[in-house]
Amino acid sequence: MNLKIAVLPGDGIGPEVTLQAKKALYAIGVVYDHEFVFEDAFIGAVAIDKTGNPLPEQTLNLCLNTDAVLFGAIGDPKYDNNPSAKVRPEQGLLKLRKELGLFANIRPIKPYKSLLDSSPLKRHVIEGADFTIFRELTGGVYFGEKKLNDAGTIASDFSEYSEEEITRITHLAFKAAQNRRKKVTMVDKANVLETSRLWRKVVKKVSENYPDVLLDFLFVDNAAMQIILNPKQFDVILTENLFGDILSDEASAITGSIGLLASASFGNKNALFEPIHGSYPEAKGKNSANPIASILSAAMLLEHFGLHKEAKKVYEAVEKAIEYNVVTTDLKADSKFGTNEVGDFISNVI
Amino acid sequence: MNLKIAVLPGDGIGPEVTLQAKKALYAIGVVYDHEFVFEDAFIGAVAIDKTGNPLPEQTLNLCLNTDAVLFGAIGDPKYDNNPSAKVRPEQGLLKLRKELGLFANIRPIKPYKSLLDSSPLKRHVIEGADFTIFRELTGGVYFGEKKLNDAGTIASDFSEYSEEEITRITHLAFKAAQNRRKKVTMVDKANVLETSRLWRKVVKKVSENYPDVLLDFLFVDNAAMQIILNPKQFDVILTENLFGDILSDEASAITGSIGLLASASFGNKNALFEPIHGSYPEAKGKNSANPIASILSAAMLLEHFGLHKEAKKVYEAVEKAIEYNVVTTDLKADSKFGTNEVGDFISNVI
Ligand SMILES: CC(C)[C@H](C(=O)O)[C@@H](O)C(=O)O
Ligand SMILES: CC(C)[C@H](C(=O)O)[C@@H](O)C(=O)O
Repeated sequence: MNLKIAVLPGDGIGPEVTLQAKKALYAIGVVYDHEFVFEDAFIGAVAIDKTGNPLPEQTLNLCLNTDAVLFGAIGDPKYDNNPSAKVRPEQGLLKLRKELGLFANIRPIKPYKSLLDSSPLKRHVIEGADFTIFRELTGGVYFGEKKLNDAGTIASDFSEYSEEEITRITHLAFKAAQNRRKKVTMVDKANVLETSRLWRKVVKKVSENYPDVLLDFLFVDNAAMQIILNPKQFDVILTENLFGDILSDEASAITGSIGLLASASFGNKNALFEPIHGSYPEAKGKNSANPIASILSAAMLLEHFGLHKEAKKVYEAVEKAIEYNVVTTDLKADSKFGTNEVGDFISNVI
Repeated sequence: MNLKIAVLPGDGIGPEVTLQAKKALYAIGVVYDHEFVFEDAFIGAVAIDKTGNPLPEQTLNLCLNTDAVLFGAIGDPKYDNNPSAKVRPEQGLLKLRKELGLFANIRPIKPYKSLLDSSPLKRHVIEGADFTIFRELTGGVYFGEKKLNDAGTIASDFSEYSEEEITRITHLAFKAAQNRRKKVTMVDKANVLETSRLWRKVVKKVSENYPDVLLDFLFVDNAAMQIILNPKQFDVILTENLFGDILSDEASAITGSIGLLASASFGNKNALFEPIHGSYPEAKGKNSANPIASILSAAMLLEHFGLHKEAKKVYEAVEKAIEYNVVTTDLKADSKFGTNEVGDFISNVI
């Protein structure tokens, strides 16, 4: 297979970890005789530094005209504490999600057997947990109008959802549940939010097409608690943009490290693959960041193109790294391996 | 001391648990020679059933003219899945918070020594954790305009914060930190939300008045993860309404059961005390709900009126109940004690 892949390393540890994902894909290409052509482009703080624009025209065009996007991370503390910054790195990612129409972000959560004891949660709580979060990615408060009055004393955010936006991701979530344990848990705050009430109504309607799938509802506060108390109860979690952001980071603790979690984002035409972790600026350039989330994102990319045995090969190589303790310090405090060594091990095993 | 206390048992398990808090306060009154006069009133689903209004005029007037409000719980599933319900139980609570100006909701999180093993989190992760969440309670998306278009296909929520709203709770949080470990962690989503950026700006400005207190910032997704990975890092968490709702329920898992967590809400004149758990309708009338959160809310009420030794007495009685395993099944699966027995034990010990 020939694939043209746009690579957007972004900020912080993004470049280091994405490099390892490229190495893994390259190895797969050699072994299975595929041609993956990578083209790198800027996004985020580095793009602002270079062009003033967190998503340069050129980057966007590249992404629109490739088979898939491999994304690193975004964000830089110099913008976080500067409320008057006019452009922000994150705008690059949000605009990219919007322009590519990536409405569904899929985040699988499943602890590795050999890491069951690395989680802050007790083994019996997480052993057997296996769920996937379907996070709506192009709506809600992320994309509503933001305002600050002239005096700089009153700020507002606006969140909106339409039936159509809810319907399309709901179908994806129910289809996924049909191939899993046939349960969808809708997470919202319907006792307070109007958008949540619309979500409930639409999700119930869509669910009628999937009589084999059980649907239940949780308020987001309760869900945040249940993910810790009893993560095994979940199969597919379906939720809006902001709640999905919060709950998926939280759920990463189940696996022991956010450095293990990959995600895939789909639209009608495009697809993007990224670790769920952020740019982690403190670790930048230190060869200490965990590359596994990025490598697993590459595996999700392979699956997306039907390359299942290739994806499996990557999963197995990652498992081997974990099994042999070839991991970064987030997983083993006294590990002597860094980002590069873990990446090398995994691509060598492939 | 003479205190007039409005008691709003509300829905679900609210009445059962609030009754135990009243019993504890009554016992304190007898032992320490105080006169607590209780007056009950309706709120929530029961108030809708009786009057059509989730916060009847009479209830509001009572609350405005008493020294403190003891609140139970609110919510009924018959409204949750009915997107076209015109009035909702939760509106009663939200209106009450607004009318009493209860802008600060304070939720202490600290595991009991003898319950360290009841948490889904490992002992070494939670042992020594001790933090308090300051949740803004009368602003944000809870109180912004909600809209649904005529076709019922587009819904929206609006969130707004003013400098003044942020300033007043920030002062309370910093003052509390001065009497604790002198650290405030502001939780927001400043990389996306305009309101969060205003929060950061205002909190930084206010923090200049408290040079002895360390201020740091966390994005809410990261905070949701850090609360599980390393809860000991927190002293005072300061955050807006919705994030506070989510994070405090999540944090309850540290203590083993949400049935242990109390909260106090303060305005300029009024004060309200309530468990952080909800109405838990499945358990209603079963004598199985944990009354401790409600009893601890009563203890926070006593503290608010400077009755420190009385509050201490309640805390000790609760500790004794836990120590002797006189607890409900959320804490000990095979317990034979119910709501009433736990409440009786605690007021007898007092
Ligand atoms: C960087 C940030 C804008 C982003 C988000 O909130 O969506 C990140 O946290 C994520 O989850 O991908
Ligand atoms: C019942 C509900 C409206 C309420 C809230 O979200 O504030 C509850 O969850 C709480 O935390 O007090």
